[in-house]
Amino acid sequence: MGKIILTGDRPTGKLHLGHYIGSLRRRVLLQDAGDYERMFVFMADVQALTDNADNPEKIRQNIIEVALDYLSCGLDPQKCTLFIQSQIPELAELTTYLSNLISVSRVQRNPTVKTEIKMRNFEANLPLGFFCYPVSQAADITAFKATTVPAGEDQEPMLEVTRELVRRFNQTYGEVLVEPNILLPEQAVCRRLPGTDGKEKMSKSLGNCIYLSDDAATVWKKVKKMSNGEPRMSMEEPGHLEGNAVFTYLEAFSTDEDFAEFWPEFENIEALKQQYVQGGIGDGTCKKFLNSVINKMLDPIRTRRHEWEQDIPEIFNILKKGSEAARETAAKTMDEVRAAMQINYFDDQELIRQQVEKFSK
Amino acid sequence: MGKIILTGDRPTGKLHLGHYIGSLRRRVLLQDAGDYERMFVFMADVQALTDNADNPEKIRQNIIEVALDYLSCGLDPQKCTLFIQSQIPELAELTTYLSNLISVSRVQRNPTVKTEIKMRNFEANLPLGFFCYPVSQAADITAFKATTVPAGEDQEPMLEVTRELVRRFNQTYGEVLVEPNILLPEQAVCRRLPGTDGKEKMSKSLGNCIYLSDDAATVWKKVKKMSNGEPRMSMEEPGHLEGNAVFTYLEAFSTDEDFAEFWPEFENIEALKQQYVQGGIGDGTCKKFLNSVINKMLDPIRTRRHEWEQDIPEIFNILKKGSEAARETAAKTMDEVRAAMQINYFDDQELIRQQVEKFSK
Repeated sequence: MGKIILTGDRPTGKLHLGHYIGSLRRRVLLQDAGDYERMFVFMADVQALTDNADNPEKIRQNIIEVALDYLSCGLDPQKCTLFIQSQIPELAELTTYLSNLISVSRVQRNPTVKTEIKMRNFEANLPLGFFCYPVSQAADITAFKATTVPAGEDQEPMLEVTRELVRRFNQTYGEVLVEPNILLPEQAVCRRLPGTDGKEKMSKSLGNCIYLSDDAATVWKKVKKMSNGEPRMSMEEPGHLEGNAVFTYLEAFSTDEDFAEFWPEFENIEALKQQYVQGGIGDGTCKKFLNSVINKMLDPIRTRRHEWEQDIPEIFNILKKGSEAARETAAKTMDEVRAAMQINYFDDQELIRQQVEKFSK
Repeated sequence: MGKIILTGDRPTGKLHLGHYIGSLRRRVLLQDAGDYERMFVFMADVQALTDNADNPEKIRQNIIEVALDYLSCGLDPQKCTLFIQSQIPELAELTTYLSNLISVSRVQRNPTVKTEIKMRNFEANLPLGFFCYPVSQAADITAFKATTVPAGEDQEPMLEVTRELVRRFNQTYGEVLVEPNILLPEQAVCRRLPGTDGKEKMSKSLGNCIYLSDDAATVWKKVKKMSNGEPRMSMEEPGHLEGNAVFTYLEAFSTDEDFAEFWPEFENIEALKQQYVQGGIGDGTCKKFLNSVINKMLDPIRTRRHEWEQDIPEIFNILKKGSEAARETAAKTMDEVRAAMQINYFDDQELIRQQVEKFSK
């Protein structure tokens, strides 16, 4: 059997450059490379509800935003299956059975869970559904027999839980589920793009995001305000790369072609950096260049987004068809799961035969 | 809307007199009284798996035993819906959404959960699925909009969790679910029948059960060995009622008609007790009487069981049809649940219209 990719996002907001560099851009490459038998990309609305239970409207509104971002970036419903998690009830069923194969304390010890709980300040009010999400995530992955999960290093402990559950399940009931591997981002800079403030991870709540759907004017407004790290009195002073978000972004996004097109004085980012740390390069010039780089990258995405925005019903249609296709796969896995657990009583002719014999004595 | 009953058993073993007096006998009365619009009786195999994950065969073998016990006792598939929990995947789906509306600490504080965890000596290995069972139970009840759950007092804290979840759900998403009430056993003696050893609750693991499927010889063997509490040197000495399992059983099972038929010297249990505590009544005689009482009660059950044992495939057929009917009800509730949560995106014309408008600007 070929390799299968599964990946997704919580539909709690529009996607930004952090998502693009961290996963979206690569997903499109993976999709187009053709090395994978199937690729599933999903909107994790069920997971988003675990800590947004009282605000389903937020999720409802963002389904289409995320779908627009997916399609604009080049995810192609002909090549990958786009679906919405809640439309696959088999995932809840599989979660139930996997939950019996892991202890409460094993989940508590998971570093990813610990961090996520801390980040959200749940304290005494940790929702049970949120606490269970490592198992729910294991069900998402294994229901599609995914071999490959593109994710950041911080997700490795979650994948380890999934692999443990797969081993426990297969040992207990028979070989049905598949152990997934993580596919880490290639470049360090892709793993955690800072926000425009240069400090934290790009995140909606911190207001430090550049969205894939931002227009050119908005991007320029945000780039202009970006942090250059330690301030300089004049451009003649040596520039500082540390904490310099502009340079972090240039590392992440600028190509040699961008230099040739917008700043031919430098061949590439290395050459620019060399000069910058010696002095003589203004931060405004760097920002203008970054602005050009980002806009060049976003322009085709914006064009596609604009086209898709004119055909919203077709997007719902794509998601519906994708969800149906995904459900078919998950349902097939669940049939195998139930058969392995031997809880498919009504299809189990051997059970019926056995019981007839037992009671005929 | 009329009242709806939901009740069930974990299919981990044959049912015994404790089940009969505690719930089964009453279920048949409730079924026949016609005060309830619907009655659902289910085999909780999913719940049984939460602490038997590595032994699904035990559950698989006992499905038919419990079904035979149900049918022999007079549960009538024409009057009540008999189903198997695992065949209703909607229950897992509802569990997922209810889990977001309760905190981990609220579940931990539940006295029923505490007791059950203690009883099973889980300690560090408490399976997550077992820990979540109050929510899973709330889903079982609410998926059928049950108004009435016949159960022992010890289950009241569980029902309270269900009611809390119903209120949280309805406040958050809209009025869909129904708050259930507990229906307690009428007589104290029905709430906790001791085992034949007179000490503990009747329980398979203690080997102190009289099963509904025991034949007359087996019943007599077990009754003969029953405890009469504090021993007497001769039958002339006053008898002791305390810790006297024979008398506890007589209180639970003997009727005035039984006395008229088998022991006409006494009009009823009160008259017998009065004499017994004064002395002059042999324990062997009491046991013979109890044996007659139990066998008279079990005889029609045995006859029906024997008939059903000749038609095992029909029992699977009944369970299959019942599960289909139950699933229809649960699926209808889940449709309402998804609509209230507004996660039924593809059926939500208003959402599509709204988004078309939003992006056409």
